[in-house]
Amino acid sequence: MITAPPAQIGASIDEIDTPALVVDLDAFERNIEKMAEYVAKTGVRLRAHAKTHKSSEVAKKQIAAGAIGQCVQKVGEAEALVQGGIRDVLVTNQIVGQEKLHRLARLAHQATIGLCFDDPLQVRAASEAARKEGVTIDGYVEIDTGMSRCGVKSGVIAAELANQIAQAKGLKLSGIQAYHGSAQHLPTAAERQAEIMKAIGLVKETQEALKKLGLEAPIVTGAGTGTFRIEAESGVYTELQAGSYAFMDVDYAVIKDERGNDYSEFEHSLFVLSTIMSVAGESWVVADAGLKSYSGEKGPPRVHKRPDLAVVSMSDEHGKISIAPGTERPKLGDKVLLIPGHCDPTINLHNWYVGIRNGRVEQIWEIDARGASR
Amino acid sequence: MITAPPAQIGASIDEIDTPALVVDLDAFERNIEKMAEYVAKTGVRLRAHAKTHKSSEVAKKQIAAGAIGQCVQKVGEAEALVQGGIRDVLVTNQIVGQEKLHRLARLAHQATIGLCFDDPLQVRAASEAARKEGVTIDGYVEIDTGMSRCGVKSGVIAAELANQIAQAKGLKLSGIQAYHGSAQHLPTAAERQAEIMKAIGLVKETQEALKKLGLEAPIVTGAGTGTFRIEAESGVYTELQAGSYAFMDVDYAVIKDERGNDYSEFEHSLFVLSTIMSVAGESWVVADAGLKSYSGEKGPPRVHKRPDLAVVSMSDEHGKISIAPGTERPKLGDKVLLIPGHCDPTINLHNWYVGIRNGRVEQIWEIDARGASR
Repeated sequence: MITAPPAQIGASIDEIDTPALVVDLDAFERNIEKMAEYVAKTGVRLRAHAKTHKSSEVAKKQIAAGAIGQCVQKVGEAEALVQGGIRDVLVTNQIVGQEKLHRLARLAHQATIGLCFDDPLQVRAASEAARKEGVTIDGYVEIDTGMSRCGVKSGVIAAELANQIAQAKGLKLSGIQAYHGSAQHLPTAAERQAEIMKAIGLVKETQEALKKLGLEAPIVTGAGTGTFRIEAESGVYTELQAGSYAFMDVDYAVIKDERGNDYSEFEHSLFVLSTIMSVAGESWVVADAGLKSYSGEKGPPRVHKRPDLAVVSMSDEHGKISIAPGTERPKLGDKVLLIPGHCDPTINLHNWYVGIRNGRVEQIWEIDARGASR
Repeated sequence: MITAPPAQIGASIDEIDTPALVVDLDAFERNIEKMAEYVAKTGVRLRAHAKTHKSSEVAKKQIAAGAIGQCVQKVGEAEALVQGGIRDVLVTNQIVGQEKLHRLARLAHQATIGLCFDDPLQVRAASEAARKEGVTIDGYVEIDTGMSRCGVKSGVIAAELANQIAQAKGLKLSGIQAYHGSAQHLPTAAERQAEIMKAIGLVKETQEALKKLGLEAPIVTGAGTGTFRIEAESGVYTELQAGSYAFMDVDYAVIKDERGNDYSEFEHSLFVLSTIMSVAGESWVVADAGLKSYSGEKGPPRVHKRPDLAVVSMSDEHGKISIAPGTERPKLGDKVLLIPGHCDPTINLHNWYVGIRNGRVEQIWEIDARGASR
């Protein structure tokens, strides 16, 4: 059962059924434009990450603004995007399992498909799937940049794996995946800078090792919303994978910029619209959005433009909101806009974006890769 | 886009595409049976909570075992259940908004529908919707049992609201909602006992106040998986709302029973099946299930029957698993069963349950109320 959209185009904000995932279209478009202008200026390419937005509608808007394609984490996401018309998709992840690899290879008839590797067995399996399907998949060797998750060691070991990719039929050695996820949310700009500088060193070490083997891997892909300027200006990275920049969340709002101010490269454009459903409490009210409307693992959402209101506990379908003494109590039926703690898993809970401008619903986009984790 | 089921009936566990939400049918059926036997013995009724399972298939199994109906939190959940054939649904929550109330009232043509109130404005709005639709909705006055979320103060204030329900056309005063959610996961049995004893006192106070007004509210509904025996044996509660008992999760695994042992009333029957997708790390491996396959706000999942493996970090689509020194390293492609930190929001991420028995897929159930938060 796909729930129907929570509003119709032309409706007022008050007419949107809640909880609903709402996009401030002006802020969203400014974010897209700001990043597009930046990459145009620096000469790196943007391949925005669809694990954030999960929607071929958003992908098309990023590509219309100059992004060269999309990144995904899963084959299911790639399928949704290709079905939605996207023609260049990089799986920034390892894919294990013959059935999954065949699904991915099939997409390569319609689109340029890239895939990351950190093990020779993965290379062999992807090569087999690509050969059976008669397609070529772009191969990326993933190096561990210091986040200690996936990726082989940089340098000689990475070059050896790259060589296996280069030799494998059905695969084409295309690049190095050097994403440093754990650097994105480090609290200070100096800490983020230090971590990415280390990653840049590891990429260079790998490039030298590749050169010794006579291998070319022209693309270096990585970077997120918290560090993209550092990679872009490294002279080493050629593609950025940022995704959150389109929407932002509390997790990015709390990190600091170079001057120690709140990180404000991009604007909050994503909200969970929620209705006050209980005002029986003395010092609190309860909103109708809980853990099934926003993810809670990075802490509670913030109430937009109401610093006097704080989400103090999250249940499945309730958000308890404390009210600062002496401030205006929300009334039953009032609406609040919640800024999610973490945008990616929040979006994955919803089937629709409701795009608003000047107080009206202007656009509705399906989240067609929602739940596509396989 | 609804993703296709991750397996076909008759497949082996190794053939299930991952990540997948898997139910051990033997353990699940033992949980259902154990609760059914308990309520039959004590004489209370079970109205199991569908906010946990989100599926009319599971609801039917609970009802076949003696449950009198289902609880839900949202109108959308009620719609899915009624469409799925359930004929008795209590919304254990407040519903605000005329459109939502009309949707709920329409369901009362096909099913017995109950609704909770903690404000006179809610009563007036629900009465209007029920009258317009020509139906009767069962009304429950919700009291704050000490969890400080929704609910009016017990006693005279609750009785006044109950009187308004009783007087309202289209509504029938049916009971008291006295659910104490925050008591469910208190670490010790003594703490849970103390909190529920307070709630029982508040119910009695409310019943006395109702009596003085000449009102009858025969149903007292509440209780969850952590405290259900206390409410059931109170002589005051008549209905239990437990939901997690069918599946369990880490959040319930870590509380203690009366003897200080791990809480083991029910068995873990719910898992996220995940594939090891990267083994490049020295002391860790990475599984293909992350925050889009299980909710993380109650901490990471546990690896079933592998105490030597621990999920140490959760990304969108990765679970990093550390390996205790000297134990067997999982290999690329190996499967692990993850016990979710919190079952309710985990289930809400998936479209299908894959029911397994004796190593084979025996049943596939749609999660037809997934995402039905409106």
